[in-house]
Amino acid sequence: MQSKKTVTACLIIIGNEILSGRTQDTNLAHLAKVLNELGISMSEARVIPDSEEKIIATVNECRQEFDYVFTTGGIGPTHDDITADSIAKAFETELYLHPEAEALIRQRPAPEEVMVARLRMARIPVGGELIENPTGGPPGFQIGNVFVMAGVPAVMQAMASSLDGDRLPGGRPVRSRSVGAYLGESQVAAPLTEIQNRFSDVDLGSYPFYRKDGYGTNLVMRGVDEKRLEQMLAEVVQMIIDQGGEPILD
Amino acid sequence: MQSKKTVTACLIIIGNEILSGRTQDTNLAHLAKVLNELGISMSEARVIPDSEEKIIATVNECRQEFDYVFTTGGIGPTHDDITADSIAKAFETELYLHPEAEALIRQRPAPEEVMVARLRMARIPVGGELIENPTGGPPGFQIGNVFVMAGVPAVMQAMASSLDGDRLPGGRPVRSRSVGAYLGESQVAAPLTEIQNRFSDVDLGSYPFYRKDGYGTNLVMRGVDEKRLEQMLAEVVQMIIDQGGEPILD
Repeated sequence: MQSKKTVTACLIIIGNEILSGRTQDTNLAHLAKVLNELGISMSEARVIPDSEEKIIATVNECRQEFDYVFTTGGIGPTHDDITADSIAKAFETELYLHPEAEALIRQRPAPEEVMVARLRMARIPVGGELIENPTGGPPGFQIGNVFVMAGVPAVMQAMASSLDGDRLPGGRPVRSRSVGAYLGESQVAAPLTEIQNRFSDVDLGSYPFYRKDGYGTNLVMRGVDEKRLEQMLAEVVQMIIDQGGEPILD
Repeated sequence: MQSKKTVTACLIIIGNEILSGRTQDTNLAHLAKVLNELGISMSEARVIPDSEEKIIATVNECRQEFDYVFTTGGIGPTHDDITADSIAKAFETELYLHPEAEALIRQRPAPEEVMVARLRMARIPVGGELIENPTGGPPGFQIGNVFVMAGVPAVMQAMASSLDGDRLPGGRPVRSRSVGAYLGESQVAAPLTEIQNRFSDVDLGSYPFYRKDGYGTNLVMRGVDEKRLEQMLAEVVQMIIDQGGEPILD
């Protein structure tokens, strides 16, 4: 029997380019969905700069607070790729050239100077294990409960696809139901509170939308028990009808 | 004369829907650019759930660490909109019905139950000040160095447009130059390190790209001194040519 305790994760997004607004992060949304299927709840995310001091402090704080910590970004071959070095320092250990990662990188020939740069990506902390990279590029690594992955979305997604429930034991996946209506949030606020109070095991979120043909509200129910979700959905649908709206089901 | 010290900001994104992956945040990138024009550096962002305890702890931690803190999300009229209440608790103060915000909301007539819900959005903490909402909807508010704004991007952007350098004194805006080339990151890693070492006042980032017609690297320089940026750009362009690449300027 699985534990009822929520299994939690935190994503640390490392990169000046995300904080400057130059690059739009999409890794959080993707990883949240992957983890949810493993019964792991994405409970917090942090976006931090390429700063060794900040990476060390954030990783050490988050690995105490959450069951799993993921990082994206900063594992390439250039001077601004300082994630591996910083993680090793956070764990008070050293980096070493992982033989398997080195062999992978040496498969593609390159001039010596270029190979030296590429081999930076074969360094992982002592005590770490590789995370497979199905794109054929350099792998990520895991040390303790910290999973270090690429920042480029296609590569991060490939690495995430290699993780499974054996490596990341979780709980029950959260399921959702949603229904929308062309009713303002204020019109549904009071009856919604009443329904939420009777379904304390389901998280009921209310999200306004604005479209060309009018404004309205999407109501999203999230919980682990499908039967309770169906019961709550029926009540929310009835509430929308009572308020003079027309339920829009996905 | 302006201080040389970097003026910093942190964005706290409040919302289960961002953490679940259902909604893609775009507020970070937008606000980062707005703040940069005011000479304020977005130095961290956190995505946290709709949890009073978490909001209080995060706001209290971040308002000590950064010059400015912004929050997005959770200021609507429904039961899951707990940001204003949580911020008041973080500042150990109470919410009250702000007369100007109340008058604005009462301009649009509504049945009593609906009006009660809408007036929730006129509550701000004692000691706070309004943030104008040019969309005509309910305002945001500022208390101390914390700026509480809407989560819906169009509304957040309208609120952000009402903030200026009088309310948010900053430093010098960061400017950038960028150049790309169809060269792998490993090919430019060594000469790039050498250039970065000589330009310690400019942040040089290296970002791989993968396109149908090949892979390459974008090099982004960020700093406050335009002359130094131009000098560094010229060196990076020359380096690309030396490595057998063709510089692609914006």
